[in-house]
Amino acid sequence: MEQRLSVITLGVESLSKAKQFYTEGLGWKLSPNSQEGFAVFQIGGMLFALYPKQALAEEVNIPVAKGFSGITLAYNVRRKADVDATLSLAQDAGATILKKAEATFWGGYSGYFSDLDGHVFEIAWNPFWPLDEHGNIDVS
Amino acid sequence: MEQRLSVITLGVESLSKAKQFYTEGLGWKLSPNSQEGFAVFQIGGMLFALYPKQALAEEVNIPVAKGFSGITLAYNVRRKADVDATLSLAQDAGATILKKAEATFWGGYSGYFSDLDGHVFEIAWNPFWPLDEHGNIDVS
Repeated sequence: MEQRLSVITLGVESLSKAKQFYTEGLGWKLSPNSQEGFAVFQIGGMLFALYPKQALAEEVNIPVAKGFSGITLAYNVRRKADVDATLSLAQDAGATILKKAEATFWGGYSGYFSDLDGHVFEIAWNPFWPLDEHGNIDVS
Repeated sequence: MEQRLSVITLGVESLSKAKQFYTEGLGWKLSPNSQEGFAVFQIGGMLFALYPKQALAEEVNIPVAKGFSGITLAYNVRRKADVDATLSLAQDAGATILKKAEATFWGGYSGYFSDLDGHVFEIAWNPFWPLDEHGNIDVS
């Protein structure tokens, strides 16, 4: 596993209010890769995303009521096969698989694990967000 | 506010077990800037840190029992005066100040706010971790 992360996603109650906070409030600029229901901002070689919390909890397979933190950290891989390999590596290291890798509605392939303290990581292959040689993503 | 973040910090129950998970388990390498009680990893131009969850909750001023997510996102500024200015900007945008800026035990100056959904941000001036022109930190 390379030493990097790809996306920080914050679950939010109101996507429109949250977008307003980060854009008008803090002055950040939305990436054109944002979609209805999903806001994304370029931060260095990583992305910062906003997504409805309920949908994120369902995606991650942890009910909000069960203490889902509302934050996921994604590590994007270069090849589809790396998703399963990376989830296995994490599991061997003591992680809990929250969701086995599967094809996603957005055309990628991803799965989730939680680390020893319950922090949620997505391992994802996203053919629409290529990684450069350093592992950076650029959707600005 | 520049469009970037500086540090992702995960609160952990056992720092030694968490360090082992990320180093031996996932193969990441600790930064020499790590200290006893604080583990830090270089990820691109950002840092990924592990810190005892109880201490992090006290630092942030949210009791663990009150639903602290156990994650903080730090935005480091270039000049000490930028800390208060950035906290004010966030407050004007609707953020809640969790802790007013103050001198820290490690020789910096920082304060905390939560966004509209309770996600915790630290605004910090850290003279030991200079930012380059792009806002990147390098402690590798």
